[in-house]
Amino acid sequence: MKQIIILGSTGSIGTNTLDIVSKCRDGFEVIGLTAGSNDEKLEDQLRMFKPKAVALSDRAAAERLRARCRDVNVDIHDGPEGVARVAELSGDLVVSAIVGGAGLVPTLAAIRTGKHIALANKEPMVMAGRLMQEEARAHGVHILPVDSEHSAIFQSLEGHRQEDVHRLILTASGGPLWELSSDEMRDVKPARALQHPNWKMGAKITIDSATLMNKGLEVVEARWLFDLPASQIEVLVHRESIIHSLVEYKDRSMIAQLGLPDMRTPISYAMHYPARMTLDLPSLDLAAIGKLTFQNPDHDRFPCLGYGYDALRVGGTMPATLNAANEIAVAAYLHEQIAFHHIAEVIHGTMEAHSSREVAGIDEALEADRWAREKAGMLVRSLAPSPVR
Amino acid sequence: MKQIIILGSTGSIGTNTLDIVSKCRDGFEVIGLTAGSNDEKLEDQLRMFKPKAVALSDRAAAERLRARCRDVNVDIHDGPEGVARVAELSGDLVVSAIVGGAGLVPTLAAIRTGKHIALANKEPMVMAGRLMQEEARAHGVHILPVDSEHSAIFQSLEGHRQEDVHRLILTASGGPLWELSSDEMRDVKPARALQHPNWKMGAKITIDSATLMNKGLEVVEARWLFDLPASQIEVLVHRESIIHSLVEYKDRSMIAQLGLPDMRTPISYAMHYPARMTLDLPSLDLAAIGKLTFQNPDHDRFPCLGYGYDALRVGGTMPATLNAANEIAVAAYLHEQIAFHHIAEVIHGTMEAHSSREVAGIDEALEADRWAREKAGMLVRSLAPSPVR
Repeated sequence: MKQIIILGSTGSIGTNTLDIVSKCRDGFEVIGLTAGSNDEKLEDQLRMFKPKAVALSDRAAAERLRARCRDVNVDIHDGPEGVARVAELSGDLVVSAIVGGAGLVPTLAAIRTGKHIALANKEPMVMAGRLMQEEARAHGVHILPVDSEHSAIFQSLEGHRQEDVHRLILTASGGPLWELSSDEMRDVKPARALQHPNWKMGAKITIDSATLMNKGLEVVEARWLFDLPASQIEVLVHRESIIHSLVEYKDRSMIAQLGLPDMRTPISYAMHYPARMTLDLPSLDLAAIGKLTFQNPDHDRFPCLGYGYDALRVGGTMPATLNAANEIAVAAYLHEQIAFHHIAEVIHGTMEAHSSREVAGIDEALEADRWAREKAGMLVRSLAPSPVR
Repeated sequence: MKQIIILGSTGSIGTNTLDIVSKCRDGFEVIGLTAGSNDEKLEDQLRMFKPKAVALSDRAAAERLRARCRDVNVDIHDGPEGVARVAELSGDLVVSAIVGGAGLVPTLAAIRTGKHIALANKEPMVMAGRLMQEEARAHGVHILPVDSEHSAIFQSLEGHRQEDVHRLILTASGGPLWELSSDEMRDVKPARALQHPNWKMGAKITIDSATLMNKGLEVVEARWLFDLPASQIEVLVHRESIIHSLVEYKDRSMIAQLGLPDMRTPISYAMHYPARMTLDLPSLDLAAIGKLTFQNPDHDRFPCLGYGYDALRVGGTMPATLNAANEIAVAAYLHEQIAFHHIAEVIHGTMEAHSSREVAGIDEALEADRWAREKAGMLVRSLAPSPVR
């Protein structure tokens, strides 16, 4: 029986994780759940899974939850420090699925208390990858990737020798806008950009997929998760999202992981590792699919992909800056304050203005994050067609 | 330094193996080489690699070699017992690459003297798979597959738990005649059937690929190599021969091995296992290839595929019978004694006439082999348009 804590339990990864727990009640005990502001969904979850403690980072939402859950024996924390407190509860595995940079502090707290991490949130690794890995090593913690691409690479490395790896190939669906020209993309509306062809995901990651920033962030994440330089990490556009990623070894043999695009497979793998659980999902039928296609990425239409490589080249606090600028730009785009093509401009402008520093500890990462949010916010206001409150 | 012996050194696999040895002279010492009747090529090889002993199963060829190699310090054996003697030399690894059932006795001899086996020759596993595996276990011997499909499955199983396997999927190129109709295939000439689109291989295995009997034999081989029932082994037609095979696990995750079709990769993997060697081959460039296609196999046009499953269902000596009948039929076809569509008829007729017995030891397998060759020979003579000498 694994005791698990889910950070970000009301999002897409969190609900899929609880779906797997509900099918495997003998395997898991839910110790803690955290969310942002969705107190109603968290109430349903805590009544079903009976954790010891929950937290909402939104204090008003936590207050509402407390008022409604007087009949339940559960500690209800609030604020970012409340989320970190739930992350520090004793247990075996923390599923880290908070959207964005907000996941860094609680994920590090979970690592420092010696729990293994199923990492669905790529931003902490982007912001402070070296630090995360140092802390994980120091505390004997496995970081098990949940992102489908990194899970694929993790599975393709199992049983093979790290020193034999020639390169990692992250596959990219190309996202919702791959078929559009640069001109068509410039002012594409959020409603259109949110229509992902293969994956049902949250809004932020779907926009990251539309800009290919998601793949740029994944390159940074892969660099730290698998301890390989950016020169050994490539991106391949594969529209069907069936081959989730590949590893090439030095004898030219490639190992790949494939499957229908369903997050429950990588989530379940990280939860059960090194075992696997039977999942009641359809098998991948390649004959029915008929063909898989591959293309090189297009850096002209999708400059954000290159920003991931640029940030790694500079190093230090630059990836944290990239990440924060992207979060601000995507939020502004989703609120229709800036146009689609402005997302890349905001990120690029913020990175250009940043003087990178070494990330000796979490403070430097958080300071770069804070600085970049402010800078990106200014750029958003300068680009917005109408005054932004 | 691994001491290696190559059974079948003058064939396609044998020469590729020596090509790898020649690029890695610090890694391997060639102890023994055997061939059928190609004394000239064996002479070149023994002068270059300086083995302790060689053998030719053709005694006249051995006599010619002895006459020409008085200046070389090498034992030259002859006949099948000479081949077995070389297989029994002390060493670390035997590459078993003799074409057809003739590989069974020397491969078993190599296993019984405790050497690991790089198995390129599928027929011994088809004829006496259970026995081979029992002997391998008894002598602590690894059987490392060299066939590209089985190497792919072996690599896709490494690091994952056997009990989590849901099914194996052997990919099939479809062979040289996949695009032909049944009518066009009936009387297709050997010159056409020998034109494989992806793989440069020997004549026998290329005809097996044209009939899909090769895939039927591979199903039997996989059953024993990976200790899984035929119900968990499937075949998928994949014309490009890039995905060499796949394993599906019970969480619906598939692991696959990919690469350009070049036998040096699986040969090198088996030779260096568990390490890998840098091979000076081009990388697989999926974007340049553009697409991979998949189809279900066609049992109507290619009945031989089903015979592999049939033979496993009956069990005992039936797979050995299938294999022997196929060898006779293919040889007769290559000599233009029977038509292409007669190959399946000869195999089917031989299997229909066979009463399967348990394979308690090698004798039963060899007896079934002998019986089936005789029976298949009679069927060939009855089908041949003109008297067969």
